[in-house]
Amino acid sequence: MAGSGGSGAPGLEALRARMDEVTMRMVGLLKERTEIAVGIGRAKRSAGLVVADAGREESLRRRVAAECGALGLDAAMGSRLLDLLLDESVRVQSGGAGAPPAAPRREPRPSMFQRAKALEAGGRRIIHMEVGEPDFAPPPEAERALAGACAAGRTRYGPPKGTPELRAAFAEYARRYGASPGAEDVMVTPGGRFSVFLAMSALLSPGDEVVLVEPAWPAYRDCAELAGAAVRAVGTSLEGGWVPRLEDVERAASGPAARMLVLNYPNNPTGRVLPPGTMDGLMSLAAERGLYVLSDEIYSEHAGPSSGWKSALSYGYGRAVTVQSLSKSHAMTGFRAGFAVAAPPITDRMARLQAVCLTSVPDPVQHAALAALGADVSGRTAEIRSRLRALQSRASAMGLRFLAPDGAMYLFATPGNGAGFDGTALANRLLGYGVAVAPGEDFGGYGRYVRISACLGVDELMEGMDAVERALAEGGGVG
Amino acid sequence: MAGSGGSGAPGLEALRARMDEVTMRMVGLLKERTEIAVGIGRAKRSAGLVVADAGREESLRRRVAAECGALGLDAAMGSRLLDLLLDESVRVQSGGAGAPPAAPRREPRPSMFQRAKALEAGGRRIIHMEVGEPDFAPPPEAERALAGACAAGRTRYGPPKGTPELRAAFAEYARRYGASPGAEDVMVTPGGRFSVFLAMSALLSPGDEVVLVEPAWPAYRDCAELAGAAVRAVGTSLEGGWVPRLEDVERAASGPAARMLVLNYPNNPTGRVLPPGTMDGLMSLAAERGLYVLSDEIYSEHAGPSSGWKSALSYGYGRAVTVQSLSKSHAMTGFRAGFAVAAPPITDRMARLQAVCLTSVPDPVQHAALAALGADVSGRTAEIRSRLRALQSRASAMGLRFLAPDGAMYLFATPGNGAGFDGTALANRLLGYGVAVAPGEDFGGYGRYVRISACLGVDELMEGMDAVERALAEGGGVG
Repeated sequence: MAGSGGSGAPGLEALRARMDEVTMRMVGLLKERTEIAVGIGRAKRSAGLVVADAGREESLRRRVAAECGALGLDAAMGSRLLDLLLDESVRVQSGGAGAPPAAPRREPRPSMFQRAKALEAGGRRIIHMEVGEPDFAPPPEAERALAGACAAGRTRYGPPKGTPELRAAFAEYARRYGASPGAEDVMVTPGGRFSVFLAMSALLSPGDEVVLVEPAWPAYRDCAELAGAAVRAVGTSLEGGWVPRLEDVERAASGPAARMLVLNYPNNPTGRVLPPGTMDGLMSLAAERGLYVLSDEIYSEHAGPSSGWKSALSYGYGRAVTVQSLSKSHAMTGFRAGFAVAAPPITDRMARLQAVCLTSVPDPVQHAALAALGADVSGRTAEIRSRLRALQSRASAMGLRFLAPDGAMYLFATPGNGAGFDGTALANRLLGYGVAVAPGEDFGGYGRYVRISACLGVDELMEGMDAVERALAEGGGVG
Repeated sequence: MAGSGGSGAPGLEALRARMDEVTMRMVGLLKERTEIAVGIGRAKRSAGLVVADAGREESLRRRVAAECGALGLDAAMGSRLLDLLLDESVRVQSGGAGAPPAAPRREPRPSMFQRAKALEAGGRRIIHMEVGEPDFAPPPEAERALAGACAAGRTRYGPPKGTPELRAAFAEYARRYGASPGAEDVMVTPGGRFSVFLAMSALLSPGDEVVLVEPAWPAYRDCAELAGAAVRAVGTSLEGGWVPRLEDVERAASGPAARMLVLNYPNNPTGRVLPPGTMDGLMSLAAERGLYVLSDEIYSEHAGPSSGWKSALSYGYGRAVTVQSLSKSHAMTGFRAGFAVAAPPITDRMARLQAVCLTSVPDPVQHAALAALGADVSGRTAEIRSRLRALQSRASAMGLRFLAPDGAMYLFATPGNGAGFDGTALANRLLGYGVAVAPGEDFGGYGRYVRISACLGVDELMEGMDAVERALAEGGGVG
C-alpha cells in the first residue's frame, strides 16, 4: 500500500482534490434524493401503493442507460450506481434510515416442501408430490462406500475443488454428453444447487443482469439476487410448448449489463426439452453477446430417449457452466453430491469461493459419490418414466391441461377451465388433505399452474391425484 | 407491484421528475469522477504506485462521514455510496471499464495447506504442522452411525436448519457453557466455517464494518469481504499477551457503519484465552453499540482447565452468534459438521440463506454428528494438550518466542532474534523439506511469525521441529 501522504506523482494532489469535491457533491445529491424518496414513500402510502415499483424501475433504468450512452460512461457502472440508489430508496421508504441491515432483496419464503416436512415432523402423513425426490434407496455401491468411509480414512479436509479421483470420474461421466472434459474442468460441490450458487456468486457483480427463461426452479432467481444481480425473465406458455422465443431472449439480453443466460433442460417444472434448433440459437446468441451460460442439466438422465436433448457441453463454449448432480439420477438427494463442468478459469473462481465458505465437500460423501458412479441406474430412470406416464393418463382423464413431458419427472398442469384458477389456493387446500404439490407461482408467477412430481410409487401417486380431484371439485383451486 | 403509469398519488409525478433529475446529475458526476480516476491511475502508474491506497481511502471515508453529519444524511448510506465509488475507481484504474466482472476484492490465495496437499498428491511425504486437523480417527460412535445411515433411511433432503433431534442435541451440548439455549436457537451447518459465512452474509450489508482482533483465522476477513463489508482490524502483540486493548476496539468500532465484532477464543493462532474482565468489557461495548458479536468457539474443548475461558453464550446477548464445530474436538474435520447458536431471528435469516445455496446439510453427516455427541472425547483433548506441551518445550529450547498457550492447539512463534525474520520465507523453505507450517502473514500481516500446529504425534512433531531448526540455522527465515 502506498503511504497516505499521497505525494510522489505529478498532478496527483490536484486530481485528488477534484475527486474529493465530486465525491462530496454526490453525497449532497444522495441526501437530496433521499429526501425526495421519503416524500414519495409518504405519497405512496397515502395512496395505498407499494414501495417497490417494477415498471418505474424499468423506465429509470432505460433513462440511465441512455444517459450513459450519451456521456460515454460504461453502462454497467451506471447500472451499479442506480442499483445502489434504488436500494437506498426502498430502504428509506420502507423503514427509515435506521432500519436493520438489508437481507437479500427478496427473502425466500419457506417452500411447500419445508411446510410439508414441518407437518410431517408433527406426526402427519404427507404424500410428497411437491418435491423432486425419488423414493428409491441410493445405489448399494454408494451405501457400501459410505459404510466403509471411516475405515478407508475418508474423514479429512480435502482440496476445495474435490478429490482428484472423483473429479476425473465425473469428467468421464460427463463425456456421454458429447464432450470431452478433463478432471481440470470439473469441480465437486455439495449438490447441484451449490454449483448454481458458486457460479453466480463467482461470475456476477452487483448490477449485472441474468436472463432467465420461466417458469423456472426458484433457486436461479434466489442465487442471482444473492449475488446482487437483477433477473430479466423471459416468459413462455403452455400454448407455445414452453419454448422461449429467440427474439424474446434477445430482447432480455440486449442491455449492456446482461451477463448470464440460465438454461435448464430437461426443464423443471415443465418437462420440456428444447428443439435442437432453439438450443443452437440460444448458444449462438450467448456467444455473440459474450454471456455466460449456466446450463443446469441435472435431469439429463431423465431426458426421454427420443427427446433430442442436447447438452450445453456439446457446444464447447468457453463461458458455459454445466451443472450436474447425483440427487435425482442416483436417488442421493440427502448426500448433497453434485458437480460443475466449466473451463478452469471459471472453476478456479468457484473453487476459491468454496474454499472460503465451506473448505471442502464432506469427504465421506465424495467417497460414496465415486462408488455411486459404478452403479447401473437405468432401471430407476425407466421407473420414473413409467410413473410419469401413469400420472399423465390420470391427469388427462381429470381434464388437466399440460405439455406431455419430454423428460424430467414432473407435470406442470392447470385445470381445463384455467381462467380464475389459483394454484396456490389449491396447494394450500391439498396440504390440509395431507397431499403436497408445488404452486406454479413459485416458478416465476405461473399462478394458474401446479407442479406435480412423479417421484412416488403409482399407488401413492393415484391416491394423491384422488385428493387433487376432490379439491378441484370442491372449488379448492379458486383463490 | 403498482403499474408503470405512476399516477394515483398527489404530487407523485412531480417528485419522481425531481428524483430522475437528481439521478441523472449523479450519473453525470459519476462520469466526471471516473475520468478523474483514470487520470489518477495514469499518474500513479507513472510514479510506480499501486492502485489501492488504504490511507487515502481512510481519509476520504472520514470526510464523507463528516459531510453526512453536516447534512443530516445517514452515515451508513454515505458509506455505501463511497464503497461503490471506491470500487469503481479501482476498477477503472486497474483495467478499464471493460474489465471482467469483479470477484471478491481480495481473491484468497491457495493456503499453505492446499499447497502442501498438492505436493502430497504428487507423492511427497509432508509433515502437516500447518493445519488444525488432529490425526485421530473420528469417535467409533460416529463411524458406526455413518455406516448405518443408509439402512436408517438417512439419505434425504432435510430442513434447512438441520434435523430437530440434532438441533436439540447441540443445544444440550452447548449448555455446558453457562447458558440454556433451546433447539430453536441452534442451526446446523456444514462445518463452523459455513456458520461464519452464513452469519456474515445474513447480517451484514455492503458498506458495513466488521471489527476483527488480529492475528486471526483468515476466514473471518474472507467471509466479511464476500458480504461486501469492510474490516477494521485491531492489532495485538506478543508483548501485550495478544490481548486487545479495549480502547483500540472502541476506536475501531466507533464508525457509524460498525456492525459486528468478531471474537475467537481460545484463539487461533495465538492460543490466548481472554482474561474475564476483557471479555466482559468487549461484550459491554458490543451491547452499547448494538453490534453483532460473532464468537467462534470451536476450540472451547481445548481451553486449558484453569484458563478462565468464558463463552459468549454465557452473556445472554441477543445479538451474539456463537459458532461451534465437531472438527477439532471430535476429529471430524472432513465430515463438515458444525453449528451456530443465536436468537431465532438470526438463525432464521441464516437458515433462509442456507436453504438458497445448499438446501440442507448432508443427512448422513447429521446422523453421524448426533451419534458423535455421545462419545467421550476428553482423552483426545488431553492428548492435544500434552503434544502442545512437548512442542512448547522444544520451541523454547530452540530459542523461539511465543505465548504459552491457554488453549487451542497451536504455537504462534518467532525466533528470539525476530527482527528481519520472514515467516513466509521460512514456511516456503520448510515446504521444500517436506514440512508445512502456516506463515503468520495469513493471519493479518504478522509476517514475523509462523503458526505451528500440535495435531500430530510427538515423534512427528519433533521431526518437523528438527527441520525448523535446520532451516533457521541456514538462514531460511530471512526474506
